[in-house]
Amino acid sequence: MVTKACPRLPILHHSRELVVEAVLAGRRAETLVSEQLSEADLELGGMVEDRHHGLTTPATVRDAKLYPRATEIRNRRQLTIVSVEECAEVADRLGLELIQPEWLGANLLVRGLPELSTMPAGSRLVIPGGLGLVCEMENFPCRFPGEVLQKLHPEIPGLVKGFIREAYGRRGICASVERPGTIRPGDLLQFVPPQPHKTLT
Amino acid sequence: MVTKACPRLPILHHSRELVVEAVLAGRRAETLVSEQLSEADLELGGMVEDRHHGLTTPATVRDAKLYPRATEIRNRRQLTIVSVEECAEVADRLGLELIQPEWLGANLLVRGLPELSTMPAGSRLVIPGGLGLVCEMENFPCRFPGEVLQKLHPEIPGLVKGFIREAYGRRGICASVERPGTIRPGDLLQFVPPQPHKTLT
Repeated sequence: MVTKACPRLPILHHSRELVVEAVLAGRRAETLVSEQLSEADLELGGMVEDRHHGLTTPATVRDAKLYPRATEIRNRRQLTIVSVEECAEVADRLGLELIQPEWLGANLLVRGLPELSTMPAGSRLVIPGGLGLVCEMENFPCRFPGEVLQKLHPEIPGLVKGFIREAYGRRGICASVERPGTIRPGDLLQFVPPQPHKTLT
Repeated sequence: MVTKACPRLPILHHSRELVVEAVLAGRRAETLVSEQLSEADLELGGMVEDRHHGLTTPATVRDAKLYPRATEIRNRRQLTIVSVEECAEVADRLGLELIQPEWLGANLLVRGLPELSTMPAGSRLVIPGGLGLVCEMENFPCRFPGEVLQKLHPEIPGLVKGFIREAYGRRGICASVERPGTIRPGDLLQFVPPQPHKTLT
C-alpha cells in the first residue's frame, strides 16, 4: 500500500523565538475551558495543575487504529499550544471578534510563529537554561471548543462544525516535557527544528 | 533567521509492514556492541536489558545546543533500530561483506522499509494487540561503530571516518516505547505514519 504524500509541508519558520503570552491549566473535569496562571511548573508528566498531567494516559478514539480504547500509553498530549496568529485567523473566519486560549483548553498561548500548527514533530521549544518541550504532533480540532464558542455566541449558527472546519491546520500542537522547568507569561521560547536528514554521499 | 529546508524529504513508504529480524541488547558498559536475544520486554523506559534503558537520560553532546551536558532529560533514544537494507548498502559502500546489527549497538534489526532512516518523527511501529513504538528522530552516525568495524577489518584503512560518511542517512532511527510489550524475532511491526497536516479550508 502506498502512503499518500503530506498535502501540506512544514513551512520555513522565519523566527526562532516565540513569546509566551499566556500560561493556562485545565483544572476542572467538567469543562474543556482552562484558566490563566501567573506561572506553572512542568514536570516530565506535564503541567501539574492540568487534568492532562501524567507520564501515561488512556488511549482515546484518536488512537483507535493503534490501541484499544483506554490502553495505558505514554502521554504525548501533555500540553496543547496555540498561537495568537492562528487564533485570530480562526476567529476571523468564524466571524468572531476573538478566540481566547481558555476556550480551546490551551496550556500555552504563544506569539511569533505564525504557522505554529505546521511545526514538525521532534521540534523543541526551549527556555535557555530551563524548560524544554518536544513537539509531538499537530493537534486536530474536535467539537468541544466549538461547543464552547456556540454557547458564548448563540446568535451565530453553526459554530461547532464551523470550528472544526476552520481550525484544521490552525489548532496548534501537542507537546510533551523533555526537561522540567517553570514557565511564565513573558518568557521567550527558542524554536529548534529537528536536525534535518543529511544529504547522502 | 531562516531555517534551511530539509535537503531530503521522507520517501513514500511502499510497505506498511516490517519483519523483526533480530532483537538485541547492549548489556556491557565497556562496548557499543549488542547481543541477540530470543525476546525482550519493553517498558515505558525502553529495553530492560539494555544500557540505554530509562525514562530519563543525561543530555549528551548531541543536545549541546539545548541543554548543559548531563542535564536529566526525557529519554528519546531508548532504542536504536536499523534495517537489513541500509546495513547492506553501508557495507557495500565500505567494501565489507556485511554489517551485523550487533556492531552498531542496534536493538532491533528490521526488514521491509528500505529507507528506514527517512521515517518521520512521530511515526509509530506497532505489533497489533501489543507493543507500540514512536519514532523520535533519525539516528546520525558517530565514530564508535566505525571503530568496531576497523578492529574487525584492520586490512581496510579508513573505516572510522568512512562509516560516518557512508552511514549518514542510513543509520536508522531512535525510538521510544509508547505501549509496553514483548518483541521477538519474526514479529511483524505495522508502520503507521503520523497523521498528515490537513488541507486548509
